[in-house]
Amino acid sequence: MWKANPIASRLQVKWPIIQAGMAGGTTTPELVAAVSAAGGLGTLGAGYMSAEQIRQAIRAIRELTDKPFAVNLFIPEEFDGEQPVASTVAIAMNDVRERLGIPADPAVTRYAEPFAEQMAVVIEEQVPVFSFTFGMLEPRWMAELKQRGVTVVGTATTVREAVALEASGVDMIAAQGSEAGGHRGSFLPDSPSNLVGTMALVPQIVDRVNIPVIAAGGIMDGRGIAAAFALGAQAVQLGTAFLTCVESGAHPEYKRAVRETNDEATVITRAFSGKSARGIENEFMTLLAPHDSELPPYPVQNALTRDIRTAAAKQNRTEYLSLWAGQAAFLSRGLRAEELVAKLVEETERVVSGLR
Amino acid sequence: MWKANPIASRLQVKWPIIQAGMAGGTTTPELVAAVSAAGGLGTLGAGYMSAEQIRQAIRAIRELTDKPFAVNLFIPEEFDGEQPVASTVAIAMNDVRERLGIPADPAVTRYAEPFAEQMAVVIEEQVPVFSFTFGMLEPRWMAELKQRGVTVVGTATTVREAVALEASGVDMIAAQGSEAGGHRGSFLPDSPSNLVGTMALVPQIVDRVNIPVIAAGGIMDGRGIAAAFALGAQAVQLGTAFLTCVESGAHPEYKRAVRETNDEATVITRAFSGKSARGIENEFMTLLAPHDSELPPYPVQNALTRDIRTAAAKQNRTEYLSLWAGQAAFLSRGLRAEELVAKLVEETERVVSGLR
Repeated sequence: MWKANPIASRLQVKWPIIQAGMAGGTTTPELVAAVSAAGGLGTLGAGYMSAEQIRQAIRAIRELTDKPFAVNLFIPEEFDGEQPVASTVAIAMNDVRERLGIPADPAVTRYAEPFAEQMAVVIEEQVPVFSFTFGMLEPRWMAELKQRGVTVVGTATTVREAVALEASGVDMIAAQGSEAGGHRGSFLPDSPSNLVGTMALVPQIVDRVNIPVIAAGGIMDGRGIAAAFALGAQAVQLGTAFLTCVESGAHPEYKRAVRETNDEATVITRAFSGKSARGIENEFMTLLAPHDSELPPYPVQNALTRDIRTAAAKQNRTEYLSLWAGQAAFLSRGLRAEELVAKLVEETERVVSGLR
Repeated sequence: MWKANPIASRLQVKWPIIQAGMAGGTTTPELVAAVSAAGGLGTLGAGYMSAEQIRQAIRAIRELTDKPFAVNLFIPEEFDGEQPVASTVAIAMNDVRERLGIPADPAVTRYAEPFAEQMAVVIEEQVPVFSFTFGMLEPRWMAELKQRGVTVVGTATTVREAVALEASGVDMIAAQGSEAGGHRGSFLPDSPSNLVGTMALVPQIVDRVNIPVIAAGGIMDGRGIAAAFALGAQAVQLGTAFLTCVESGAHPEYKRAVRETNDEATVITRAFSGKSARGIENEFMTLLAPHDSELPPYPVQNALTRDIRTAAAKQNRTEYLSLWAGQAAFLSRGLRAEELVAKLVEETERVVSGLR
């Protein structure tokens, strides 16, 4: 049965439907709490948040609901903020800054929020579920989380990554297919392709690990949910579907762009953050595309585009905003989160009944 | 119900399971007939076959079974065989020829089999089902096929292509997700991405056309079949799953490579034919990758690599063979086609029952 399964009981949720931890202001406490209150699992996308912001958000969520929820963080990596940026990249970005009327070559004071500080809050606040992406969790954090009974979810885009995550002690794997919007969770190198579609990825991971698998990528409605369970997943994670919800903090023009897109419109880009992510193709991506190999890595490029994204948001200029979205974004609905969860459940029931 | 549906009854098959029309010798009359005899729909991948070869194969299939089957052809496009090949491409290919001990710069006498001659046989032989890829069928052929009661299936990789095909009068759409092995059926230009995963592609096409949709891409077992029906498809098309069947004409080393691959091993390449296709990455792809933008288009590059592929096959050198395979190729099983069809049905039943 798709409803009663190990993940739902382990997560203590009514429905095995997870709202993905989209970073960058989309996952407001209101969205997270509404999803959890409706019987799913809301996730605070806290990758770009400071420790203090995370603490405030967790408390705000707990004001709104007593149901379980998750916090998602990015595994940090080494970087060199002193490395000079390629002049071609700097010129292209300053050209965009000129169009937006903001100063050229802004000083960057902070590249990424300190991970240890972020983790300290996750542990102190004893969040029910902790999910992460971009790598593996250090054993000391894993041990601390386990000791406090936190359910730990790692993100894999290939079988190799899923196997490595299982060995590291995670409780569940989020299998992120190539359809997924936003950042690719990929972390193991030397892969001819880590853009494996959900239909191919989920069953291959299910066959190779002994822990439950959460399917992500291209799932927007009851059809996708029923399909994911057919593939062997025990829960689903939806990002784009929740991005256009009323409670989501995504920019109104971003929501509109997502709802008006089509299946061909998204591409994988490194332009905004230095890490591969899927979004609706726009001018910023096109301008930076010729310089892809010269872009600084994450989190440097992410920090370098912060002023551009902030100004673009203020000026409602979607052509310079990161419009992360999955390949089925057109199926998103702009409902309240509670309505969306109810609809997803009802649709999944209907699809499952119809298959017999 | 997944079994009793408009496609199964229209195609007069017991199970809505189609063996894809893989070109290049894989779809022997034995394979096609075995799939059809087992209650599925076998397809002769006749894209590279001459009219006379197609006629012989159709007759051989009919000797083996009285069940319906399909013939698949490639929609031709304009090309200029006189255009000189870029010297970088010519050098790289002659380097491969030297490694294989075959003459440099062979004369090419035939680029593609004449489509009108191929179609004449399909019409004369009144095949039950005709499927095509790489474009749209000219109205005169569509009219002739319809008049003879042939069921016509077009291949789409995007919603736009599906809508265009429906308008052209096809009876069904094969929706080819990005996981699929072999050539991409894409034919409409100006798309940021036509690599849409099956999970995202199928429901979006189902919502936009009024004719039945056949899901393809990443489907290897009952889990994939049940998932495809959940997404709204009314039939499934499997290529890689049938490629390793006993009756398949694929080179034994090619079958072995497919069964020993993994989810990360395939990439999209134009190296072998000038058209994008998914296969297991090998040395030939790697050697030609730096010259991708200089490759001649299909069918010129396809004709230019024919001697290389032939010699590589004779010498069991998989590093120079086109190893077309989907992203879930590792799940293929090397059974007899009859056993595979029976297993697929049994598995699908089990998955569907388990979902309730």
